[in-house]
Order: sequence, then structure tokens, then C-alpha cells
Amino acid sequence: MAADSQKFIAGKIVRGENPLNLEMPFETLEGFLTPTESFYVRTHFAIPSIDRDAWWLRIEGEVENSFAINYEELLELESVTIPATLECAGNNRSFLEPKVKGVQWGLGAVGTAEWTGVPLSILLGRAHATTNGRHVVLEGADGGMLEDPKSPPGELKFARSIPIAKARADVLLAYKMNGRELPPEHGFPVRAIVPGWYAMASVKWLQRIIVTEQPFTGYYQTIDYAYWERQKAIAELTPLTEMQVKAQIAEPAEGEVVPANSRVRVHGAAWTSNGEITKVELSTDGGATWTESKLLGESKLNAWQLWEFNWQTPTAPGRQTLIARATDSLGRTQPVERDRDRGTYMINHLLPIEVEVR
Amino acid sequence: MAADSQKFIAGKIVRGENPLNLEMPFETLEGFLTPTESFYVRTHFAIPSIDRDAWWLRIEGEVENSFAINYEELLELESVTIPATLECAGNNRSFLEPKVKGVQWGLGAVGTAEWTGVPLSILLGRAHATTNGRHVVLEGADGGMLEDPKSPPGELKFARSIPIAKARADVLLAYKMNGRELPPEHGFPVRAIVPGWYAMASVKWLQRIIVTEQPFTGYYQTIDYAYWERQKAIAELTPLTEMQVKAQIAEPAEGEVVPANSRVRVHGAAWTSNGEITKVELSTDGGATWTESKLLGESKLNAWQLWEFNWQTPTAPGRQTLIARATDSLGRTQPVERDRDRGTYMINHLLPIEVEVR
Repeated sequence: MAADSQKFIAGKIVRGENPLNLEMPFETLEGFLTPTESFYVRTHFAIPSIDRDAWWLRIEGEVENSFAINYEELLELESVTIPATLECAGNNRSFLEPKVKGVQWGLGAVGTAEWTGVPLSILLGRAHATTNGRHVVLEGADGGMLEDPKSPPGELKFARSIPIAKARADVLLAYKMNGRELPPEHGFPVRAIVPGWYAMASVKWLQRIIVTEQPFTGYYQTIDYAYWERQKAIAELTPLTEMQVKAQIAEPAEGEVVPANSRVRVHGAAWTSNGEITKVELSTDGGATWTESKLLGESKLNAWQLWEFNWQTPTAPGRQTLIARATDSLGRTQPVERDRDRGTYMINHLLPIEVEVR
Repeated sequence: MAADSQKFIAGKIVRGENPLNLEMPFETLEGFLTPTESFYVRTHFAIPSIDRDAWWLRIEGEVENSFAINYEELLELESVTIPATLECAGNNRSFLEPKVKGVQWGLGAVGTAEWTGVPLSILLGRAHATTNGRHVVLEGADGGMLEDPKSPPGELKFARSIPIAKARADVLLAYKMNGRELPPEHGFPVRAIVPGWYAMASVKWLQRIIVTEQPFTGYYQTIDYAYWERQKAIAELTPLTEMQVKAQIAEPAEGEVVPANSRVRVHGAAWTSNGEITKVELSTDGGATWTESKLLGESKLNAWQLWEFNWQTPTAPGRQTLIARATDSLGRTQPVERDRDRGTYMINHLLPIEVEVR
């Protein structure tokens, strides 16, 4: 992540241009809400250009009342506004050893915004999902051909599914991000927000919702965005779902020089899924000793928690290794070592940051 | 398939040595039963060397009575003997255009044997599968590391699952092939026989049977031995199951010279799954006209049917294109063109054979 070799677009690190993948420099973390223009951008295909007046969202499959709704009608429905942290399932991938394929995200494929939209439960209620309906497939308008020989032939659209209980519980069809219309790169006109889940589930440019009986096994639910989970010693391919508990240090950044014998503010964010962050501990000696940091602001479900720590730096110059470690209200914490069954995803093992005291 | 560049082991075409993959030269087809020494060999790893006196088969998972059974005990149980055709799901792969990865099978990754063994239903009955038990995972003793980056890290064993209804209906735990002890390369001491299914389901070197509630998603059920099935325009990854209806010409073989203005016996085999072959038609003019061939012997469920046709060859010399086409009792027949959603498997589109009339 040498800054001098990095390319930037509008202040974001370019991790890919075609399709567009942009990362927030995580050291620019400031408030609880990530400004929309700083928010990381993850795309799999060209960004669809959608005319809101021609846009329709269809709901079909295991429903008694299949229908389509347009943008104007959607905005007339009851809406809610919630903060939610979205993290790319491959965030931190560039730190994996050995190197793996995929977008080489550093720390910044994560952000928190306020999302305004219609609860998916309202549309599912109107559609009258049948008792056979157990899964909800969210399909985007983004699509194209893939070069992966394991992908289906021809064009495919980005699509992911969630269990119907999750769909009813808290999933939003969002049309505003931080109080303003969704920008094209974030899913205009309407995207899903699946709180607590890795962001591949929060399908952008929504065009179709399909209620199904059987688990959905599309490309992005199996060949991509899946990991190996072992049952009785057999690895089974399992779609990614919830974000794993994690703390990240925003400042000081890797390689930064900090003054000796001074108070230095170490700060960052920590998040989990379906629980609260109960503590973030910091080690300034490579993991030998840990001290609790201060959690900032109130806890909000499925949104990150900022934290800070006033570090009394050593009097002697030298390299110091900082590590942050989060624990949540379900007692979950971060693993010390990487679990290789997770493939190129769900990267939340402890990540040492080296700084130089001078 | 130029014979002079082919390597043979014990009369079979070598398609791979490590792991061992051997094909029957299909023009050697004679009787209904394929002699064991001619039967194609498909392995994914080194052939396990199993001591029958130390062998145990465990049954576990969603069962009230988990137990293990040894070879001697298994042979004391009620057994049945059935003929069944096994076809590798990638049989005919070498004819695909463009070329695809995988073992380059010609026509001979198929064979029919008589299998003697204990109905799996007997063991499931003894184990008392719970009402949650919906799938039965069959695990072999064969395993190792794969180079595929999409495979789980570390060692894996070959394993496949079948629905519990199929497991109860007609699956065998076979310990004899054509009346004699299973050879090591065919699964000694005990293999599964899953009649009507592509042979990846007939797991060899059985060591464990696991009853599960959820569909099994191991490597050989998802990343490998799966294809794309479209539901509502979305391709979903689907495990291979039943063999597709198909006729193959054994003789004359591709490129063979046949005498002009003579009677030439065209013969081969045809098979399907869960139905009977009702007709095999032959075209000797590249598909312009079709004539029914003669079915030989009686029809046996999930075993191939031999057929023959007395071809009056043209008086003029030249190249002729032969095509065989099977139809089954469910009205299924062979597609004219390859369906690319099937990936590298389930290859049953019409296959022209060119011969030279001289």
C-alpha cells in the first residue's frame, strides 16, 4: 500500500477500473457516518444507467400476488432510516499470505451510512409469500459475461439470496444514502440493505425479487462469495452471510512515524453482526499485553462503533506493533490466525500495524 | 483418437495415469455385460489399499442408531444382484468444441456389470434415520490434496450425496462385480451402486455414510460434478444426478473403412435413467433420414440396451456420416446441439461418426 504507487479517483484508492472498485483510505476515518463521496465502491460489471421513470421492481416466485412497483410508488410507501455498516467480504484481502486472487482491498472496503428505504417486509406482505417461500433472491440490473470457466455461459446478472426470515426482519429497499438520492455507483435507483451481512447481499440496482422454496445456488452464492464450512470433517461450500467481529485501526497508519514519549491518539472502528461491540482492546507491544480502549458514542445494531486510545509512546525510538481486538456481546472475538477454509473472504484475524517511534 | 498415438494398459485406453483413468475402446463392445477387465476405470486420487479385515463402514448423522459394520457382517446380510450401467458424467468429453478441461474421454467411459450387494435401505433401516434425514452422504476412502484454487484447503475425501428416497429405493452397497470380488480399482472392498445416476454417485471404497437434513455441498457436489440449471432466467449450480438418454455406435468406429454395396452391421448400446429405451434410430446420411434399429435382448431398468442395424452401404465410394439417436419410454430423446449450461458434463447430443465406404 505504498501511497506513491497508488492511483486515486476522487480521494479514493483505485483497486480496479473496469469494473470500478474504489477504496476509502481508512486513515481518513472521522465520524460515525462515512460521507457518501468517501464510501468505498464495489462493482462487478459496468454501472447500469437506469432511468428512474422507466424502472420497475418485480416481485415473483412463491407468492400469491406477483406484482411490479415503480419508483414513484415505492417512495409513497412507509420508509425507515437506519445506519448500517457495509463491509465487502474481501476487505483486508491484500494482507493475506500467500496472495490470493480477487480485488486487493486494504482496510477501506467498509463504511457506514444512513440508509432510507422501504422495509422489504412491506413488499413481501403485499405479495403474500406462500408457505413454501423460504428464500428471497435479490437480482440486480448489473450483469455481463465473466471469464471464469466456472461461471455459467452467456450473460449473468448479479444476484444473491437471503432467508425469508431475514428478509422480513430488517432488510430495506433503500433509495437514499445519507439523506440524499443514491448515487449511480451505490445502486441508483434502489438497492437492498441487508444489515449485519457482508455487503454482497446488499444487492444494488435492484430489478427483481424472487421468493423461492429451495436455497438459491446462483454463481455469486456458490462459486463466488462462498467459503468452506466443515461438518463431520467434510468441507461444505457455504454462502457468506454475516460480518465477522473486527476492529480496525485508522490512525496511526501502517508505517507512520509517531513522536517518542508523547500522547498519541490511536483510533478506529469496530463492528460485528447481530450483537454489540462490548470492548476493543489495543496492544502496543505486538500482542503481549492488552488495554481496553474507549468506545465512542452509543452502540447501534449492525453499525460500527468508533473507539480511541491515548497511547503513551515509549521514550526510546524504534518500531512498535499495534494490534486492535474487538469482542462483541455474544462473546465473539477475533482469531489470532487465518482460517484457510474461509478462502479469500471473511478476513478478521488480528492484523498487526507497524509504526515507527522517533 | 488416433490409435497410434494412444497408450494402452491391459487393453484399455490411458486417459490419465496419476490418478489412473482408463477407457474401454468402445468398438470392443460385445455382450450386455462388460467384462470386468474391460470396464473403464475412473479415479480421482491414488487407489486406496484397504485391508478387508480392518475395514469398517460407519453410518451416522441424522440417525437414532449410529453404528459401524465390518466386511464379514455386511456379507451376512441379505443381498441382491442387479445389472446396472455406469457412465462417467464426462463420457464423450473429447468431442466437445471448444475443448474443455477434464479427462478427455471418448466413447468408452461407460459399462454395464452385474453388481451384488446389500440394499442401502437395510442399513438405513437398522440405523433408524430420523424424520430430519433427507440426504445421504457417501464418503470414500480415496482422498488427497487438489490443486484447484476453488477446492477446500488440505486433504479432502471423495464424497457425494443422494436424496434419502433414492437411497432407500435401489442403492446397493456392492461387494461383487460380475460375480467376483470387487477389484481394487472398482472400489474394493465395498462401493455404492446408484442405478440410473452418473457414476460419480456410485462412490467407491466406501468408508462412511452420513444422513443429513440439509443438502450436502461438498466439493464434488458443487465445484465439481455440477452444471447450470436455469430457473426464471437465473443459472443455478445443480449437482449432476441421472444419466441422460443416449445411443452410442460401437461399430463401425470413427474413420473405419466399410465395403461398398454390402451389408454392414452397425451396432452399439443405448441407455437412459428410470425408463426404458423404446427405440434407437440410425441415420446413415448425416441426419436427413432415420430408420429404426433392432433392440437386442430384454430391457432392464437402468442398464443399457444393445441394438443393431443392418446397413446396406452405398454402391458409390465416399464418406458417410452415421448418427444414432435413442428415445426412451418417457419420450426423452437426444438434443441435436450441445447445451452449454451443462459445462463439461452430461454430454448426450447427437454425435456423428464418419466412415469411409470403399
